[in-house]
Amino acid sequence: MVTTRKPLRAAIIGLGRLGARHARHLANKIQGVKLVAACALDSNQLEWAKNELGVETTYTNYKDMIDTENIDAIFIVAPTPFHPEMTIYAMNAGLNVFCEKPLGLDFNEVDEMAKVIKSHPNQIFQSGFMRRYDDSYRYAKKIVDNGDIGKIIYMRGYGIDPISGMESFTKFATEADSGGIFVDMNIHDIDLIRWFTGQDPVQAYGLTSNIAAPQLADIGEFETGVAQLKMSDGVIATLIGGRHAAHGNQVELEVMGSNGWVRIGEHPDLNRVTVFNDQGVVRPSLQSFGERFDTAFTDEVQDFVNNVIVGKQPEVTVDDGIKALKIAKACQQSANIGKLVDIQL
Amino acid sequence: MVTTRKPLRAAIIGLGRLGARHARHLANKIQGVKLVAACALDSNQLEWAKNELGVETTYTNYKDMIDTENIDAIFIVAPTPFHPEMTIYAMNAGLNVFCEKPLGLDFNEVDEMAKVIKSHPNQIFQSGFMRRYDDSYRYAKKIVDNGDIGKIIYMRGYGIDPISGMESFTKFATEADSGGIFVDMNIHDIDLIRWFTGQDPVQAYGLTSNIAAPQLADIGEFETGVAQLKMSDGVIATLIGGRHAAHGNQVELEVMGSNGWVRIGEHPDLNRVTVFNDQGVVRPSLQSFGERFDTAFTDEVQDFVNNVIVGKQPEVTVDDGIKALKIAKACQQSANIGKLVDIQL
Amino acid sequence: MVTTRKPLRAAIIGLGRLGARHARHLANKIQGVKLVAACALDSNQLEWAKNELGVETTYTNYKDMIDTENIDAIFIVAPTPFHPEMTIYAMNAGLNVFCEKPLGLDFNEVDEMAKVIKSHPNQIFQSGFMRRYDDSYRYAKKIVDNGDIGKIIYMRGYGIDPISGMESFTKFATEADSGGIFVDMNIHDIDLIRWFTGQDPVQAYGLTSNIAAPQLADIGEFETGVAQLKMSDGVIATLIGGRHAAHGNQVELEVMGSNGWVRIGEHPDLNRVTVFNDQGVVRPSLQSFGERFDTAFTDEVQDFVNNVIVGKQPEVTVDDGIKALKIAKACQQSANIGKLVDIQL
Amino acid sequence: MVTTRKPLRAAIIGLGRLGARHARHLANKIQGVKLVAACALDSNQLEWAKNELGVETTYTNYKDMIDTENIDAIFIVAPTPFHPEMTIYAMNAGLNVFCEKPLGLDFNEVDEMAKVIKSHPNQIFQSGFMRRYDDSYRYAKKIVDNGDIGKIIYMRGYGIDPISGMESFTKFATEADSGGIFVDMNIHDIDLIRWFTGQDPVQAYGLTSNIAAPQLADIGEFETGVAQLKMSDGVIATLIGGRHAAHGNQVELEVMGSNGWVRIGEHPDLNRVTVFNDQGVVRPSLQSFGERFDTAFTDEVQDFVNNVIVGKQPEVTVDDGIKALKIAKACQQSANIGKLVDIQL
Repeated sequence: MVTTRKPLRAAIIGLGRLGARHARHLANKIQGVKLVAACALDSNQLEWAKNELGVETTYTNYKDMIDTENIDAIFIVAPTPFHPEMTIYAMNAGLNVFCEKPLGLDFNEVDEMAKVIKSHPNQIFQSGFMRRYDDSYRYAKKIVDNGDIGKIIYMRGYGIDPISGMESFTKFATEADSGGIFVDMNIHDIDLIRWFTGQDPVQAYGLTSNIAAPQLADIGEFETGVAQLKMSDGVIATLIGGRHAAHGNQVELEVMGSNGWVRIGEHPDLNRVTVFNDQGVVRPSLQSFGERFDTAFTDEVQDFVNNVIVGKQPEVTVDDGIKALKIAKACQQSANIGKLVDIQL
Repeated sequence: MVTTRKPLRAAIIGLGRLGARHARHLANKIQGVKLVAACALDSNQLEWAKNELGVETTYTNYKDMIDTENIDAIFIVAPTPFHPEMTIYAMNAGLNVFCEKPLGLDFNEVDEMAKVIKSHPNQIFQSGFMRRYDDSYRYAKKIVDNGDIGKIIYMRGYGIDPISGMESFTKFATEADSGGIFVDMNIHDIDLIRWFTGQDPVQAYGLTSNIAAPQLADIGEFETGVAQLKMSDGVIATLIGGRHAAHGNQVELEVMGSNGWVRIGEHPDLNRVTVFNDQGVVRPSLQSFGERFDTAFTDEVQDFVNNVIVGKQPEVTVDDGIKALKIAKACQQSANIGKLVDIQL
Repeated sequence: MVTTRKPLRAAIIGLGRLGARHARHLANKIQGVKLVAACALDSNQLEWAKNELGVETTYTNYKDMIDTENIDAIFIVAPTPFHPEMTIYAMNAGLNVFCEKPLGLDFNEVDEMAKVIKSHPNQIFQSGFMRRYDDSYRYAKKIVDNGDIGKIIYMRGYGIDPISGMESFTKFATEADSGGIFVDMNIHDIDLIRWFTGQDPVQAYGLTSNIAAPQLADIGEFETGVAQLKMSDGVIATLIGGRHAAHGNQVELEVMGSNGWVRIGEHPDLNRVTVFNDQGVVRPSLQSFGERFDTAFTDEVQDFVNNVIVGKQPEVTVDDGIKALKIAKACQQSANIGKLVDIQL
Repeated sequence: MVTTRKPLRAAIIGLGRLGARHARHLANKIQGVKLVAACALDSNQLEWAKNELGVETTYTNYKDMIDTENIDAIFIVAPTPFHPEMTIYAMNAGLNVFCEKPLGLDFNEVDEMAKVIKSHPNQIFQSGFMRRYDDSYRYAKKIVDNGDIGKIIYMRGYGIDPISGMESFTKFATEADSGGIFVDMNIHDIDLIRWFTGQDPVQAYGLTSNIAAPQLADIGEFETGVAQLKMSDGVIATLIGGRHAAHGNQVELEVMGSNGWVRIGEHPDLNRVTVFNDQGVVRPSLQSFGERFDTAFTDEVQDFVNNVIVGKQPEVTVDDGIKALKIAKACQQSANIGKLVDIQL
């Protein structure tokens, strides 16, 4: 699409692993946008943004950036606890906001955030449920929507990080609140289950363990979480979050229908190479969600930019984000208290 | 193994789908045994046993058979509710007993059955947990026991029949008590979870549905059952039983360890053929557990015969059978009452 | 099938790797036959046959065995160069003969053998093309015969042994004539290509190498052989024989049709277990053709016994065996002389 | 990479299927370049380039475009027979040239083209062997170069189009010279075999057929081509080109090493979805090389642009292109004359 209009002017808050990915995409791949400013605490990250991405101005204080820059949109990729205040500040400054998931960790803050967002109906707010943009999920969704596998009976979502990421997670979780295993690892699965079934869960039974990583107990985290959900119209679902996969990044979704099933990501194939060696027949595995979802990250940001240009709110709303968060928290609560938890959304 | 001793003399009760399979194996494949008598209600089945298998005498009353025949061992493959009384009668008659799973459906009867079995410690009693004899499960068990995948964190067992079996199931369940979805479809998974982990479950959360087969409600059955189990030392497990698989017979077991995973039966491959056609790349699927486990059925019966010859009790005891039954019933009870159920074994 | 007739009385010549397998099957698995005598040079093998299989009498001279024993059928599993003289002696003694493939290595001897076989049309002669009895090949053959994949365009057959067998092959080939890489490793593929297409090859281009095993040059053998065949009605085929596979025993057949393809044995899966470890997602591989084809070996011998009982010649004739041998030799000749070779059958 | 230099100014000749893909990439994805002009015969294509891609000026005569426009680089994606004259004209006009494969169809023209290219050593010339930029081939190449699979023994390359493309191919080949099945479908495989082994073929045995598409005989084309190549240092290779695959676009490469194998693209998986339906377990397949190699096409063009910016000749030279062409033609010649063909490069 070629227009005579000038590109959107955008800024980003956060240049960590995911922030850097978004910044690279904005600078190099996304059409109709120009990344003009970036905010981070780490000066090396800011240098990188200037030198490698051509970002004009950098900041260490996000409010300064919002107050100073002439921008149309902001990308919030800071640590989760800051999402609400940043979003509120940016919405009140009249900006369009793309905010990474999850929306926050504190329900009061998130509720306030939602209120502010809804009070600015002409500004676009979009949260980072990028899996809805992934080719494989879209393909599966189409199969389901076509009725090819009948009515959904059961879903199973695995979000399990490779064991190679344990050290960096431990460091991160020592300093920050991860939100717990279900928020951290299954919030996308929860969104997908709601998206595929059109149902909300009404009851959760969560269990957690640290068999694979006893050291996590010291920082109040769990290595594995498993939850069984009862959905409003009878679908049953299982969530598994973990941080221990020896082979790679297992992001798997199963949709069992009355007339067929689909599995997305049954094996995390790294590429199209099969190796025949003394172990047998081997498919090497992906080690990171970034590799897995790079195209989806690009496509969701392009969609946000297009939405801003034409003034269209995205399919995924702030309420979807809040519901996913509440469901993840209910699973955690069930594991904490050892009881079934009823879910009110 | 060649011995000068005469073959064991054996009889069988029940010549239905599974009974006929056992009878064929006894007549044709198992060493050291001779199938001399058979009992069934259907005269066609008895004719078949005479003409095709060379069974000498047939009966319609099992007590007559036990009272009349000079036999060493009996195979009980009658409908489940008869297992206890038949086992008790046979044990009291001094026979070695192979009894198909599950042991029974009524706990009082099963407890009485166990008491009688234990009071005859010199007679072999073996129940039909044939999966422990399957090459793939044995291979996986060895990997786990070697420590190759670290400590077990999670297990998942699917026992899902092909949709092509729905009609015969409906007919069967209209006339008889299947024991419920978890007893009928997951009792082997329960045994395998206990076998792999060495742990017993302490709590169950079961959910059931008839989305894929509303007609089953009329006969008090469920098409799908899902249960999440908390095991005594922290392992978590998921069971799924079903009767709706469009592709075939999905008997899948996952063992997630702290240092690797194994999946057994991820796809129910019919054979070694891959078909490339207008659907894509296709692996045809097995349609029955009989095909899947034919060798395991043979091997378990050979093991029973060998055990009888040398006077050795099998690894799987009557208590294992009772525990599997209680666990399956607890999952069902949880689904029935909508609450967590504590499991006492 | 139960009959009042007495079992066939059978003897076997050769108790090596494959001979022992056939002997075990005859003693334990095949219906309607009794293995009464065995001939071998190794006294340990003969002891084993007596003690483990209950063979009554053993011999070190096959002619003595044929002259002395009252037998109906003989199984020839001796080294290939002896096949013709043994078959001729047994046919002339009035026996039914099962002879392992290939029929022989010297065309004059094989032609004489064929003449003798044909002069005894009332005795059954069957050679060991056991793949025609394998479930997967039969399933693929049915798909092809149904027309499901249209007309055959191309076929590809791999017969590649695991590298673990190199040492025993080197020992064997130092002492005996293997017949060359194409005879030794692809004779079954050749039979399958003729069976699937109904065509004979008219031209061969063979190439061989010892890149993976230079030491084989010292004993006049090749590690790898590749041949391209032009079939009489336009189908094209590729054969690959080898002895170097790091992963296992690769016996793969591809049938490319005008409306679909099938591959049999694309990966030599050991069982139904998938392992997820630090290499990625792994399927362990079969290491021997014996494991791969155990059921086919049983079924072909059962078929031979049934054929003898009812007096029916098998589908595979001695001429099929001769043709497969000539084709394999033509591939070898092409490689030896560096030219295209026209094939006259 | 951010520079203060202005983007390269580029033009494109040809806006067909592949030309449109390159044009889209140049307009939207490639950094450091601006697509300012396009040449095509079809006015709809030119309109599309103006309206959708923002191309400033369009032409129907490529010489006019080269003479008129102030450009640094040109992309030649016209029909193959025009490649030499266009390249020569552009090189003589001082441009950097990206030319799609194959270089041409007439050896005299191609030789002249090479001479002109070599006489302008300061201009970049790059041809479209995009598979060298594909992640999977690069990964496999690294495995091979690391020595992980030992020495290469054998390679097999399949380039087989889906049957759905038959109609458009027939139309195309009726009007133009495809170069024959090996040039059209296996030129990339030939390049990859040379790249992986570092060897050139010395002898070819080609066979062709029209079993799957007899109608192609009318236009002098073949549906299937198979060739066996003897490489200079003993590696053996098989090429298969075809136009009939029922399932999709089969671009498969096998590298058999003395200590392991790799296969790239064993199945043309469309995405990460596995479908379980009444056919069995199904992986949907890719239908076009464009989908398969979209990223590789992007990366090779980005590499060309980077090469132009820094003045570096690419790894793949015009001589590589000429050799691949000669090898493909030798396979065709062998099939035409029914003899082995020695290859002189």
